[in-house]
Amino acid sequence: MLFTKMHGLGNNYIIFNLLENSLEEQNLQPLAKVVSDVNFGIGSDGMILICSSEIADFRMRIFNADGSEGKNCGNGLRCVAKYLYDHMFAETESFSIETLGGVVKVSIRSDRKNVAHSVTVDMGEPKLIKGMIPMKGEPFSTTINETFSISGKEYQMTCVSMGNPHAIIFVDDVDDVPLEKIGPIIERSELFPERVNVGVVHIKNNEELHYRVWERGSGITMACGTGACAAVVAAALNKKLKKHQPVRVHLPGGDLEIRWDENNHIWKTGAAEYICHGEIQINDSLSRSIV
Amino acid sequence: MLFTKMHGLGNNYIIFNLLENSLEEQNLQPLAKVVSDVNFGIGSDGMILICSSEIADFRMRIFNADGSEGKNCGNGLRCVAKYLYDHMFAETESFSIETLGGVVKVSIRSDRKNVAHSVTVDMGEPKLIKGMIPMKGEPFSTTINETFSISGKEYQMTCVSMGNPHAIIFVDDVDDVPLEKIGPIIERSELFPERVNVGVVHIKNNEELHYRVWERGSGITMACGTGACAAVVAAALNKKLKKHQPVRVHLPGGDLEIRWDENNHIWKTGAAEYICHGEIQINDSLSRSIV
Repeated sequence: MLFTKMHGLGNNYIIFNLLENSLEEQNLQPLAKVVSDVNFGIGSDGMILICSSEIADFRMRIFNADGSEGKNCGNGLRCVAKYLYDHMFAETESFSIETLGGVVKVSIRSDRKNVAHSVTVDMGEPKLIKGMIPMKGEPFSTTINETFSISGKEYQMTCVSMGNPHAIIFVDDVDDVPLEKIGPIIERSELFPERVNVGVVHIKNNEELHYRVWERGSGITMACGTGACAAVVAAALNKKLKKHQPVRVHLPGGDLEIRWDENNHIWKTGAAEYICHGEIQINDSLSRSIV
Repeated sequence: MLFTKMHGLGNNYIIFNLLENSLEEQNLQPLAKVVSDVNFGIGSDGMILICSSEIADFRMRIFNADGSEGKNCGNGLRCVAKYLYDHMFAETESFSIETLGGVVKVSIRSDRKNVAHSVTVDMGEPKLIKGMIPMKGEPFSTTINETFSISGKEYQMTCVSMGNPHAIIFVDDVDDVPLEKIGPIIERSELFPERVNVGVVHIKNNEELHYRVWERGSGITMACGTGACAAVVAAALNKKLKKHQPVRVHLPGGDLEIRWDENNHIWKTGAAEYICHGEIQINDSLSRSIV
C-alpha cells in the first residue's frame, strides 16, 4: 500500500490515498497504531485517510497514534489540502473537505509550478457552550476562565470546541508547565465525557502568543491547528487580545496565523510539507500489531 | 533518494544503499539527525549506509539519532545482511561485512523463495581488558563485578566490548530500574573516554535472561544486539550461567539466541524485518535540519 508522510508544523501523519485504493474498516484502528509506532512501524502522530465524499469535494478521516478516530486536526487538514492540490485531485484553488467535525473549506496559495506553498482554512465558528464542547454542567453556559478542581489541584480554564474540544489555561511561561503530567489528568477528567485537548498559552504582545498542547490520544505534539484557533478565541474571550486582530501563534513546530473574522469564522493560514513517500506491506504490519 | 526502513527486534534504521547511489560526506551527520526525527523526518533509532568495501564483501556505516557515528550494532547488521541477501547483492548464504568495529561474518538461513528468515552473525571475540573497552584504570585488568562510585551512587559493573563498549549491571527486575536516569549518568562518566552503553540484566534461569539497554547517543532502545552478547558474556564471567550454553536473551523488542563458543567467538541468531521502503528528498531534509 502506498503512503505519504507529511507534516504541518511538525505534527506528522502517514497519509493513505483511498481515492485509488481501499482498506478494510476493521483494520483501520490497528493499522493506525502500527504505522504510528516508530519502532515497528513508520512513526507518526497518527494516520490520515483521504476518501471520496457525498457531501463535499473530498473526505478525510484521522486516526490518533492510539488507534482512536479524531474529529479533525488543522495541521493534518492542511497536509491533505496540499496533497490534493499538488497531485491534481483538486482542480481549483478552493475546495471542501468533509471531516468528522464537519465540512471544511480550504483555499490554496500556490507558486507558478502549481505547488501549494500555504493553505488557508476556514475553521468554522468556535462553539463555546458546555453542551457543545462537550463538557459536564449547565449545557447553555460558557466556560471562560472558570476554576475547576481536578485530582486535588485547581485549574482556571477556558473551553472552546473547534470541531474537537480544547481546554485552554493561561500561564506565564509555556515551557515551564509540566504538560506531560497535567495533560493526561485533565484529558481524562470526568468533566469531559469525550476527553479533551489541553493547551497552555502565554500572551507575548498584542499580535503574538505562545502555545503548547497535550492532544487527547496522542500526548504532547509539536503543534495542533484547531488548538491554535482555540487559543486565540480563548485570548479574545478573556480580553487579552483584540477580537478581530490577526494573531501569530508560536508553536514548538513553527508558526500559524489565526484570524477570527467579523462573520464569527476562524481563518488559519500555514504551511505543510512532504517528508517522504513509499510503500508499506499492510498485512505484515497488521500481523506485527497482533504479536 | 530511495530508503528502506527495517527493524531487528524493534531496533529500527533508515537504510540507504550506496552501492547504487552516493551521499556527500559532510551531509551524513545532519542527515542522520533529520531522517531519525519522527516529527520532521521519517523516525528511527538511526541511519545505516550500505557501501562497497576493499577488505570485505560489503561495508556498513551506522549513525545514531544524534548524528554520531557508531562502531557496530548487531540488530542493524542483521537488517543489512537480510537486505543484501534478499536483494541479491550477496550471492551466497555466508558473506562478510566491514564495520567500524571490524569485519563481521554473517550466515543466512533462508526459505525456498530465497528470502532470509534468520541471520546468524559471528560477533567476534569479546574484549575484556580496560584498555580495550576503553575504560580508565589499569589497562590490562578486567572489570568483573567491580564497584564504582558515579555521581554519588555506587554501581557494580562488568564491562565488555563487542566492538562497542558495554557496562552491565545485574538487577532483580529489569523493568524496575530507572534506566532513563542512570543511563545518561553512566554513559557520560569520565570512566569511559568514548562513552558507554548501559545494560541491566536479570538471570531468569539456566538458559534465559532479561536485558534492557540505554544506548550511547540514542537513549533507551527496544534492543541492542551487541549488548545482548555483552550481557551473556557478563553472566558467564560472573558464573551466573554456564559459559558455552546457548542463552535466550529476552529484550523489549523480542528474543535473540546467543552462544559463546569454544573458540571464544560469540554467535548471535535472530530475525530482521522490513517496515517500508520509499523516497525522501535529501536536500529538503537537510534544509529543514538547518532551520
